[in-house]
Amino acid sequence: MYDIIVAGAGHAGCEAALAAARSGCSCLLITTDLSSIARMSCNPAIGGVAKGQITREIDALGGEMARAIDANGIQFRMLNRSKGPAMHSPRAQADKAMYSLYMRKVIERETNIDLLQDTVVGIESHEGVFQGARISSGRVIAGGAAILCCGTFLNGLIHIGMNHYDGGRTTAEPPVRGLTEDLLRLGFVAGRLKTGTPPRIDARSVDYSRVESQQGDAEPSAFSFSKSLDRNRRQVSCYITKTTPQTHDILKKGFSRSPLFTGKVQGIGPRYCPSVEDKICRFPDKESHHIFLEPEGIDTNEMYVNGFSTSLPEDIQEEGLRSIPGLSNAKIIRPGYAIEYDYFFPYQIKGTLETKLIENLYFAGQINGTSGYEEAAAQGLMAGINASLKARSRPPINLRRSEAYIGVLIDDIITKETLEPYRMFTSSAEHRLHLRHDNADVRLVTFGYEAGLVQHETYHLCLSKIEKINHLKALCANTRLQPEEINRMLAKSGYAHVDVSHHVAALLKRPGITLELILAESEAFRNSVHQITIDRSIYEQVDIDLKYEGYLKRDLLMAEKISRLESLRIPPRFNYDGISGLSNEGKEKLKKHKPETIGVASRIPGVSPSDISVLTVRLGR
Amino acid sequence: MYDIIVAGAGHAGCEAALAAARSGCSCLLITTDLSSIARMSCNPAIGGVAKGQITREIDALGGEMARAIDANGIQFRMLNRSKGPAMHSPRAQADKAMYSLYMRKVIERETNIDLLQDTVVGIESHEGVFQGARISSGRVIAGGAAILCCGTFLNGLIHIGMNHYDGGRTTAEPPVRGLTEDLLRLGFVAGRLKTGTPPRIDARSVDYSRVESQQGDAEPSAFSFSKSLDRNRRQVSCYITKTTPQTHDILKKGFSRSPLFTGKVQGIGPRYCPSVEDKICRFPDKESHHIFLEPEGIDTNEMYVNGFSTSLPEDIQEEGLRSIPGLSNAKIIRPGYAIEYDYFFPYQIKGTLETKLIENLYFAGQINGTSGYEEAAAQGLMAGINASLKARSRPPINLRRSEAYIGVLIDDIITKETLEPYRMFTSSAEHRLHLRHDNADVRLVTFGYEAGLVQHETYHLCLSKIEKINHLKALCANTRLQPEEINRMLAKSGYAHVDVSHHVAALLKRPGITLELILAESEAFRNSVHQITIDRSIYEQVDIDLKYEGYLKRDLLMAEKISRLESLRIPPRFNYDGISGLSNEGKEKLKKHKPETIGVASRIPGVSPSDISVLTVRLGR
Repeated sequence: MYDIIVAGAGHAGCEAALAAARSGCSCLLITTDLSSIARMSCNPAIGGVAKGQITREIDALGGEMARAIDANGIQFRMLNRSKGPAMHSPRAQADKAMYSLYMRKVIERETNIDLLQDTVVGIESHEGVFQGARISSGRVIAGGAAILCCGTFLNGLIHIGMNHYDGGRTTAEPPVRGLTEDLLRLGFVAGRLKTGTPPRIDARSVDYSRVESQQGDAEPSAFSFSKSLDRNRRQVSCYITKTTPQTHDILKKGFSRSPLFTGKVQGIGPRYCPSVEDKICRFPDKESHHIFLEPEGIDTNEMYVNGFSTSLPEDIQEEGLRSIPGLSNAKIIRPGYAIEYDYFFPYQIKGTLETKLIENLYFAGQINGTSGYEEAAAQGLMAGINASLKARSRPPINLRRSEAYIGVLIDDIITKETLEPYRMFTSSAEHRLHLRHDNADVRLVTFGYEAGLVQHETYHLCLSKIEKINHLKALCANTRLQPEEINRMLAKSGYAHVDVSHHVAALLKRPGITLELILAESEAFRNSVHQITIDRSIYEQVDIDLKYEGYLKRDLLMAEKISRLESLRIPPRFNYDGISGLSNEGKEKLKKHKPETIGVASRIPGVSPSDISVLTVRLGR
Repeated sequence: MYDIIVAGAGHAGCEAALAAARSGCSCLLITTDLSSIARMSCNPAIGGVAKGQITREIDALGGEMARAIDANGIQFRMLNRSKGPAMHSPRAQADKAMYSLYMRKVIERETNIDLLQDTVVGIESHEGVFQGARISSGRVIAGGAAILCCGTFLNGLIHIGMNHYDGGRTTAEPPVRGLTEDLLRLGFVAGRLKTGTPPRIDARSVDYSRVESQQGDAEPSAFSFSKSLDRNRRQVSCYITKTTPQTHDILKKGFSRSPLFTGKVQGIGPRYCPSVEDKICRFPDKESHHIFLEPEGIDTNEMYVNGFSTSLPEDIQEEGLRSIPGLSNAKIIRPGYAIEYDYFFPYQIKGTLETKLIENLYFAGQINGTSGYEEAAAQGLMAGINASLKARSRPPINLRRSEAYIGVLIDDIITKETLEPYRMFTSSAEHRLHLRHDNADVRLVTFGYEAGLVQHETYHLCLSKIEKINHLKALCANTRLQPEEINRMLAKSGYAHVDVSHHVAALLKRPGITLELILAESEAFRNSVHQITIDRSIYEQVDIDLKYEGYLKRDLLMAEKISRLESLRIPPRFNYDGISGLSNEGKEKLKKHKPETIGVASRIPGVSPSDISVLTVRLGR
């Protein structure tokens, strides 16, 4: 008998099994195909806006995804460096094949994990408590708890034009049959979602003189807090091109054979990761959409055509691609497709990801209606942690919305009606200025340590980091600089002179004045700081925390306010279109529902707390 | 339009595509799953008795398998070193995952190969000539020729105990549907075969104190003639144990739930690679069978249980395994199973592997009823070579039985009634003393060069090697040693003294007297030899050739006699009915097989020597 059985070894299943095992539980990880562990079924990348933050949080909690991408990344970029710190988001391209092999090795090295190549097709329970997992032969494997991480495999159906094929992730992988039906029998309620992927092309068929090259960062930064990357590490280029009006005309020719537009696909697709035909339909005035060509590995010709997800017929896919600058001779290695699959409405799970119906049964990843590797991994990690804590009779970890993107993610899916694949955005997080990638360790390491995933040494290193941050903040608050020192700095940033001394903390509030700059100019202050630390990541964090101190404080107040603003009325003909800062989905839902009060608005699925903040400000509070 | 389309990227398909591409043809390689190219579906090893020779022949002809195993081997052993030179057979364990990735990289680097992830489900022909391959969407891809390398995918059905599952190779890979039926429609005749694989266990669950370790060779030798292996290369151990009477009793308990014994499996299995339940049934007096534990990679816990192929129910597999010394706690990672699949009786193909029914359509590998990676690769290579030669209007290469194991293999399958999976054995090769692994390059390099697969430089190096061999043989034939020198050697091997001088060649005929020994004792001879070469592989070959000169000459005479028959061609639409004097059975078999030459006709079971005489006379000799 295993403490915890994990079904599925994708991004959710791997984190779930590792979390369970590392915290001391015996774990059986069951997967249909041992050679496709942690397979990147869609884009060959980890991170990006909001997702990069989640990956850092996974690392802080003791998960594996960050280390896996650090080991197998082939291009690292910090996105949105020019924007505010809340928007800085690490992203990396991955070598798909090596990423998968890496994760298999990590899992195989865990003493507490056994692997089994088989498929979970049913759940045995007794009086509402999980008893065991039924595999394809009919045998039931007894377990204390189970975490289902089925990805898109549940009754998976793949569409390309008017053709459809059984397929769990690709047409080369069979779907899982029977598990949905078994869960329905137990009383769960299922829905149907759809996602898709673009064609892959032969990198040799691209005309590189007609596309723009996009390099990795000269100084790549690691996802994991315990790693740093060699700046001489081999990185590959991605390439940028775009669709043309001709592309759109060609694709439109195929609309009559589109499984999406002809009603063949029943499942609802991700609004924020639309197919190219969706984009053309929804934004008819837009003459062009960006296309990113991303290598699928360091040593392969297979290239991912980011932005060109499609389930149009293959002939249309090819013709359309060939109308894109640089792709006039593009050869498709595998066509794009849509995949429909079953999921279970996540109102059926608790904040721990345990199901409300069957005790000790957990759901994680796409089975909860989410999309994205990072979202899946985060859920797998939390389900693994909570199943393990419960097995050891310890209280669960429920991350709050103000503590982590992962908290926002889980709160969102369990409270909202997830009718389309849920994807994490910075705009969904009302406390995003606090939920930065740079402070994920500071925010979360204690949870990871208490769950048993973070090593003693790592934990104490982080505690000491926190101490230094606080020490340094106090120093900044208490150190006054003299006008002559200050004016040297201000001159460099084009500010007018000052005549009196200022605290460092106050100076940092000015845009362009950084801690690094002050350190360079004031020898005395530098000497004091160096007695605390010479770690530049600490300087950066202190810098951000002090620079945005006001906003961060207001953010917290706002959260409290929201609950008090239930009765604030919205005028009947309120013009949402005139408000910048509202999310697209929020705007659409608000215009449709026309809520009478902020309180009602806040409960409309698709309207984020961030939208509520924007509205509240606009309405004069 | 491609010159050559290859369906399937297993061991046959990879060699077929590479051969076609390297000889200058444009090639499309279509596979259902790009991430399982050259997957080792069964044992993690290349080579062995007869198979090692084939691998060396593949290398001599310009194929890839030898280089792939050299790059990814994790234990190298020369089998049968204590036996005669015809029996020396290289074998190596492979890192399965790395082998597959290596082959994908090699294929991706070939300019002339395009890859497509899809499945060939039909063949288009016009008036008996191949036109194109139909893929899953219904689209037909035009091609000059096609090579079908479908492995076990055609209507694959997997059995474990009384359960069965659709599966093309594993249960995680869907079978190919429709292609068999399409070929039947064209007039081909199909049969059903069965093969199987043992369970894989977790290497951590083995008690190594109770099994015997088997190391690789201290000086590993390469499969490829153009490579040498670093003797410090990392090698892993395999382990030997055996079944016990208790094991057999446990397995017998499961016989009533055996798909083999209860008639659920229709296909015929390989006599020479039987399941453990077959062995127990067929050799009831044998108390024990050897079991070899073979790691599936350098960095994985997955371990292959060689000798324990089974399709008994999983509970019986586990109980049986645990009765084997060292495996009392064995954990199964994936169960063993039997797989049934369609094949096409190989009398329907010519010596070039082109089908008789559809011009420019070739079959290679398990579709021809063979078994084994090496046998498949050899056929893929020859089909690729011959399809390419035909595309360039050049005569085909038909290797004779006296030239290569590959010649024996192809001749056997096209003449014999392959009713069970065909496997290569040294005993099948009447010229095996000549068909050694050490001289495969000398035997075959010219074919590889003429096919366009062997580089100019490699070819000329080999020609120079042949020259040195001949030069050295002549030197041995012409150099007389004096009695005092000879007697020093003879004394070491326990021979009586001689009183007269002898030629080196004559001395080499004596067992125990080797060229190395003579070189050590005779300084003058050594100096002459060193002027020709200091390459020890050449000494070895000359040694063997001279030692077995008599046998080899007799062999050659026989081969020449046979080859006269081989060159006597029978017209394609020869009317056997009009010939009196043919036996009824002979006539029936000749009409079915439509042999291309008298030589082939003479090896068809049921065709008597008297039939051959009648035919020979009739054909004007």
